[in-house]
Amino acid sequence: MSHIRGRFKKPADKLVAAYTASLSCDRRLYRQDIAGSIAHARMLAKQSIISDDEAKQIVTGLETIRKEIEQGKFAFRDEMEDIHMAIEARLIELIGEAGRKLHTARSRNDQVSLDMRLFVKETVTDTIGGLRGLQGALLDLAEANIDVVIPGYTHLQAAQPVLLAHHLLAYFEMLQRDVARFGGCFGRADVLPLGSGALAGVAYAIDRDFLARKLGFTRISANSLDAVADRDFIVEYQAAAAMTMMHLSRLAEEIILWSTAEFGFITLDDAYATGSSIMPQKKNPDVAELARGRAGRVYGGLTALLTMMKGLPLAYNRDMQEDKAVLFEAVDILLPTLEVFAGMVRTLEVNAEATGVAVERGYILATDLADYLVKKGESFRTAHEIVGKLVSYALEKGKDFGQLDIKEYQQFSSHFGEDVLKITVASSLAARDVPGGTAPERVRQALAEARELIAGR
Amino acid sequence: MSHIRGRFKKPADKLVAAYTASLSCDRRLYRQDIAGSIAHARMLAKQSIISDDEAKQIVTGLETIRKEIEQGKFAFRDEMEDIHMAIEARLIELIGEAGRKLHTARSRNDQVSLDMRLFVKETVTDTIGGLRGLQGALLDLAEANIDVVIPGYTHLQAAQPVLLAHHLLAYFEMLQRDVARFGGCFGRADVLPLGSGALAGVAYAIDRDFLARKLGFTRISANSLDAVADRDFIVEYQAAAAMTMMHLSRLAEEIILWSTAEFGFITLDDAYATGSSIMPQKKNPDVAELARGRAGRVYGGLTALLTMMKGLPLAYNRDMQEDKAVLFEAVDILLPTLEVFAGMVRTLEVNAEATGVAVERGYILATDLADYLVKKGESFRTAHEIVGKLVSYALEKGKDFGQLDIKEYQQFSSHFGEDVLKITVASSLAARDVPGGTAPERVRQALAEARELIAGR
Amino acid sequence: MSHIRGRFKKPADKLVAAYTASLSCDRRLYRQDIAGSIAHARMLAKQSIISDDEAKQIVTGLETIRKEIEQGKFAFRDEMEDIHMAIEARLIELIGEAGRKLHTARSRNDQVSLDMRLFVKETVTDTIGGLRGLQGALLDLAEANIDVVIPGYTHLQAAQPVLLAHHLLAYFEMLQRDVARFGGCFGRADVLPLGSGALAGVAYAIDRDFLARKLGFTRISANSLDAVADRDFIVEYQAAAAMTMMHLSRLAEEIILWSTAEFGFITLDDAYATGSSIMPQKKNPDVAELARGRAGRVYGGLTALLTMMKGLPLAYNRDMQEDKAVLFEAVDILLPTLEVFAGMVRTLEVNAEATGVAVERGYILATDLADYLVKKGESFRTAHEIVGKLVSYALEKGKDFGQLDIKEYQQFSSHFGEDVLKITVASSLAARDVPGGTAPERVRQALAEARELIAGR
Amino acid sequence: MSHIRGRFKKPADKLVAAYTASLSCDRRLYRQDIAGSIAHARMLAKQSIISDDEAKQIVTGLETIRKEIEQGKFAFRDEMEDIHMAIEARLIELIGEAGRKLHTARSRNDQVSLDMRLFVKETVTDTIGGLRGLQGALLDLAEANIDVVIPGYTHLQAAQPVLLAHHLLAYFEMLQRDVARFGGCFGRADVLPLGSGALAGVAYAIDRDFLARKLGFTRISANSLDAVADRDFIVEYQAAAAMTMMHLSRLAEEIILWSTAEFGFITLDDAYATGSSIMPQKKNPDVAELARGRAGRVYGGLTALLTMMKGLPLAYNRDMQEDKAVLFEAVDILLPTLEVFAGMVRTLEVNAEATGVAVERGYILATDLADYLVKKGESFRTAHEIVGKLVSYALEKGKDFGQLDIKEYQQFSSHFGEDVLKITVASSLAARDVPGGTAPERVRQALAEARELIAGR
Repeated sequence: MSHIRGRFKKPADKLVAAYTASLSCDRRLYRQDIAGSIAHARMLAKQSIISDDEAKQIVTGLETIRKEIEQGKFAFRDEMEDIHMAIEARLIELIGEAGRKLHTARSRNDQVSLDMRLFVKETVTDTIGGLRGLQGALLDLAEANIDVVIPGYTHLQAAQPVLLAHHLLAYFEMLQRDVARFGGCFGRADVLPLGSGALAGVAYAIDRDFLARKLGFTRISANSLDAVADRDFIVEYQAAAAMTMMHLSRLAEEIILWSTAEFGFITLDDAYATGSSIMPQKKNPDVAELARGRAGRVYGGLTALLTMMKGLPLAYNRDMQEDKAVLFEAVDILLPTLEVFAGMVRTLEVNAEATGVAVERGYILATDLADYLVKKGESFRTAHEIVGKLVSYALEKGKDFGQLDIKEYQQFSSHFGEDVLKITVASSLAARDVPGGTAPERVRQALAEARELIAGR
Repeated sequence: MSHIRGRFKKPADKLVAAYTASLSCDRRLYRQDIAGSIAHARMLAKQSIISDDEAKQIVTGLETIRKEIEQGKFAFRDEMEDIHMAIEARLIELIGEAGRKLHTARSRNDQVSLDMRLFVKETVTDTIGGLRGLQGALLDLAEANIDVVIPGYTHLQAAQPVLLAHHLLAYFEMLQRDVARFGGCFGRADVLPLGSGALAGVAYAIDRDFLARKLGFTRISANSLDAVADRDFIVEYQAAAAMTMMHLSRLAEEIILWSTAEFGFITLDDAYATGSSIMPQKKNPDVAELARGRAGRVYGGLTALLTMMKGLPLAYNRDMQEDKAVLFEAVDILLPTLEVFAGMVRTLEVNAEATGVAVERGYILATDLADYLVKKGESFRTAHEIVGKLVSYALEKGKDFGQLDIKEYQQFSSHFGEDVLKITVASSLAARDVPGGTAPERVRQALAEARELIAGR
Repeated sequence: MSHIRGRFKKPADKLVAAYTASLSCDRRLYRQDIAGSIAHARMLAKQSIISDDEAKQIVTGLETIRKEIEQGKFAFRDEMEDIHMAIEARLIELIGEAGRKLHTARSRNDQVSLDMRLFVKETVTDTIGGLRGLQGALLDLAEANIDVVIPGYTHLQAAQPVLLAHHLLAYFEMLQRDVARFGGCFGRADVLPLGSGALAGVAYAIDRDFLARKLGFTRISANSLDAVADRDFIVEYQAAAAMTMMHLSRLAEEIILWSTAEFGFITLDDAYATGSSIMPQKKNPDVAELARGRAGRVYGGLTALLTMMKGLPLAYNRDMQEDKAVLFEAVDILLPTLEVFAGMVRTLEVNAEATGVAVERGYILATDLADYLVKKGESFRTAHEIVGKLVSYALEKGKDFGQLDIKEYQQFSSHFGEDVLKITVASSLAARDVPGGTAPERVRQALAEARELIAGR
Repeated sequence: MSHIRGRFKKPADKLVAAYTASLSCDRRLYRQDIAGSIAHARMLAKQSIISDDEAKQIVTGLETIRKEIEQGKFAFRDEMEDIHMAIEARLIELIGEAGRKLHTARSRNDQVSLDMRLFVKETVTDTIGGLRGLQGALLDLAEANIDVVIPGYTHLQAAQPVLLAHHLLAYFEMLQRDVARFGGCFGRADVLPLGSGALAGVAYAIDRDFLARKLGFTRISANSLDAVADRDFIVEYQAAAAMTMMHLSRLAEEIILWSTAEFGFITLDDAYATGSSIMPQKKNPDVAELARGRAGRVYGGLTALLTMMKGLPLAYNRDMQEDKAVLFEAVDILLPTLEVFAGMVRTLEVNAEATGVAVERGYILATDLADYLVKKGESFRTAHEIVGKLVSYALEKGKDFGQLDIKEYQQFSSHFGEDVLKITVASSLAARDVPGGTAPERVRQALAEARELIAGR
């Protein structure tokens, strides 16, 4: 910007102007920037640093600019370095001398921190909304399929039967922690930086508490150097977003697995699947795959932010400009992913027949057999060994547990009685009757509590 | 481990045993593992799942094992897969049949989660202690040099004078946010997973609240699948550690810069510097450099953890074993860095002569000149331009502001009067008399508040 | 080390000594360090910088030390900073004054670069050996199951039938690129840094070409500052390792998927699987899971190395010490993974029955139907639409293509004739008779070429 | 795209369409896509799979579309999924039935791989051009300041004097390795994937060698599954770009340091510096700072790509779509950075006065004193200790070496004679007369060789 280059003998080289410009990225902050400038002008007038009339002109000018931008009439020109300078230059164009006073007692350093803090606070609110929406969809799906049993897996090997609803509630819990983490981030973003100036505070009798009230901040920053050098709240949003995307990538993986012909547990709604340019039969779970892939991009953004902050001396360094492109990308991935997942989850169909077959397969009740022996007096470790050998025997015979007769059982332990044949998927579920367990009554209660939890907030 | 391979016809291949063994890494968890097992045994007895006598034997056995480990008498053998199996095997060796009952109503999946949660909770407490220690050292250094002024930098160009104490308080603030973030992590780690079994809950009438009380947990996990599949608390510790290391890398960078002959602001104590194998004169700030480099390793650990969790279907997968090596490395970097930084900061000497020279150099008071003009009625933007041209003129003449006479000033603005010559570093500091600003009285107050803050916790 | 602290008045603080020590990590470089020192001593004697007798004493002393280390008799003491100082100190202890001359015309900066370059070159050779071993195992498995057909997947949805051998050859190709990448890394590591001194070259008439020949380097470094500041060869190894681990993580994923009851395509050998502490029936693919998880750690190491090198001014900075721990971890992950995968692949059993069922499932021949219509004169895009509708119809009727009669086909296109019923998995495979395609003859030829390729090296 | 959704009963949900669309990103590939389609159409005609007339119509249509795009007349509509579908749809609109034949014997899977390989090959060429340009600028700066001496630093402490030209040549070497690495990437990208179809090869008698020749590829892919599942060439470009950005971040750091008032070694041209919104005196090295920060983003992209490829089963998965946004960002950072750095380096001014002062400061010739003693017969280790004590003594006296008299020297070693006073910066430089050393004649020769090297390509 020429008007801050008083000490220079040349304009910036064109390549330099292009290399340093951030307008195409940070124009997105126009609302926050204008809101901050309006509050700043009002405070300057209240403190008699500018006149009431000047403040009025500034506010009117800024509101005009906001409208121009929203109506697509604002000419974003390349030679404007960033959104802050673009708005200030237009303001001066519109109202003249009064506009030249807006930047009194302010620096771009505290201004950009303000804009980003306003943005992050709004975005956290949207993010928590998105998390709640997906939690609701998970509960809907769980309730609509309350009786469906699936194999619970460890190491992707069928382990023990669980209710599908119980499985879905695990994701509810993950998202619940995400809500809490974003809440922590909100609290640390909720600090007014304005008044820190370039880095040392400002030489005017400003009223920072007034600014905080007007702009909706709970606290003001305690140290001016820190206020302009700090991007923790951005890194923290990104870290929380990375964690949420990790959770969603796990859900995505399961949706992809369960949609295969081999698993066949679910069928995606046609509106949530895509086709192939060459293979007419294909119905692909692209939404889940893209979310899984985009987790990588949000992770990459976290690497980017941490790396760019590493080893930076205080206070502001231009490296920090790059925080915006990274954060915006994360937000533009996370919010739509939450929204589209809610739709995908809510519309998918569960194939109870396929899950029913899967849950009877293999030796998924082996733990129940071991527990049976324990209840007959065997130690667990011995019981485990006995059932291990029984599995080995059954495998060789090519039989399921249900196809073994009581004599075969008794070859392995005299503790086995006829009642062993009463061990079923249903009895296995019912037996896990502990808080957090998959017993149907426990799961119903957990669903009810989850409903209350998201309603209550 | 042979005793859980009942269904297998062969032992694991030697390469496989070596590839899957985690004992050399997770043996570090022996205290947590034994504490968890003791609580579990007591609960099993209380619920009459095992007898009181069996519990007593188990507890005594486990305490013996703890002593064996602490006295270096425990034979960690390669064929033991992990610390959990190593301790169970030794217990069975020591007490026989009762030992075979310990694993009743428990899986390694909930056991390892328990151990790690206990570990993370203790480690957070240590980390907050380390943060407090470094905060104290920063305050000591600030108070011991309360009158020292340094150039405040942006873009590593001298910007405006600030008190060194003000600059150091910026780091205090960063660490203060770190304390809060680790606190959030503690809260989310403070959840008892025991009772989740392999993934579905357990088929015994256990008392999870009793376990939580005995082991110092505030809450019990709400979903068994989530409890064994969740590593959020580990990723969250790592993310908080990465942020702290980022903060320390910034402090490290400044210590390195300030120790150069060119800056010369500080001299490290001989006990905190190292020499060269070839250059006899060298006194190197290796501690600061290593911390800066190790920030990269903690960042890398965060990448590692997020990547390893990406796309994992529920519940436990063996990939998750790798969380331990990564977390332990972060802890073994972070805690010593906090400790050694406290010593380095407390013992370094500030060279007030050098900072005094630096702060008089260049046109560091240019903003004060612009503010002067604003107070005389000029708009800030115009004042900025005028002073920019004055700087350009002074540069050409090879003069500092102090070497210009009043006529030269007045060539640029008729607003300049004799009082412009009264603008000094001291007046510049004093003028930044806003909350968070560098005015000496504000800084003294901030120091006092900071002292209270760390004392109060 | 006290003997390089002539200018200091105090020893390093204990915490500092512990914080900066790298001996526990870099002692692994003793062979390279001693080899480098022997060559250096011989060169010094050849150039008459030291006497022949001194060189002889040094060489004998160093060989003694090597033996001491290899026999576990070398006392690694904490106060020795690193392997270089530990060996030098022991040498002086053993042979006195001559030992004090070894470090003439050398610095730790060029010494450590030398050691690491020797280490990387050896490790690349081992890595290529490991890659070749796994390639061989893949070919063995492919040849042993040359007739097995599996569904080829895109989006994890069955797409078109392919030969298992064809699928395995895709991994062969990936590893082939890995071999080339490691080869490039070798070339860039193969540069002698010795003679660069601390950073400026040395002030002695040394013979760098002699050193290069003795130590097996093809070239000598062209710039002394670069030679001591460069860690590209380490980052490049890590990047190549990350790529290989990525490839292995994909193979791991497929092994895990194919081992599920739902896919059932393969059975791991009992020696390559592990059990559960609680569930007696479990047979888990832990090796594959761990490799997948460890990919994350190698990625993290790459983040670590790049981050630690970011923004470092020339030449050596202590941050760079951290390269060793990171690289060693990558090597200790990659080499065993290649070895254990070769065993796992070679011993796994393919279940041709299960793959046979899978390949007949669904509408996997839909592309062949579209191609059929194209050959009858339809445009591909139209043919695709027709078959898409046919699939939709068949889905509704709950029929496979084979269960539709010719009249049903003809409802969708009059181009369908009786010959459409001759489209089979076998005809589909045979039709892909292009270079790189899955037609059996093409695959046999590709196998033969692959065999030659790994034999030829 | 509706025309590949024959089997679906509903269109994609709007959110889904937006979530999966890649057009705004991949439209950048239109040139490559059209070139590939033209070659494909010609090959289809040559093989009589379509008629010559159809091919002609297709080619003309595609050339029209290319013009439409280049003239800004092409209506990119949201409902077109990607650039491939957008062009095909427009082609059908323009030429009708013939357009419906273009996708014969092709899939988007091999098409997108083709487009990206063409893009990467072109981009590597541009990148090498950019590297050459910056190398040239470094040589220009070096030659223009051939006599300037600066302190060489290790640990950012002055270590030994070096020629500035020697220092700059270190960067030349780094970029030279970058050229080689990008060359390796080019070779691995230079493989034609077309003909691989969806994943299994195609069922038409195509001529892949013809395609390779027409499109400028040296080789054709050996395995169809690998060809569509492989993104190594993209990850490899990103890894090489990360390494180059790391090198540039080091140069950036030095430019930032050297531009400080404290170092004062260089002055950036006004056209390559920027001002402050608040501080009129500021001249900031923003270009260097942004490059340093953007290194973080390219690192992040590498994390993203590796993470998104981790654990993906063969062959194509939609996750892989995300490679484009990441790669494009890296290219859009790297190429302009190389260009703007060349300008910045070429126009900066070296302040020989300041470097002259810096190089006389401290005890930078201490190594030369130690070497002096070695040449008088002392062992290096003893000489190092002696000079270390001498430094300690001089520090206490507050004297430089030049201010000590010969008697003071002789207190530390009787080897010191009058000639010790002849050790100067110039003699120190001249003494480093080894290949790669900083002796002026060596540096001149290195410059000449570097010139030849970049001219020769």
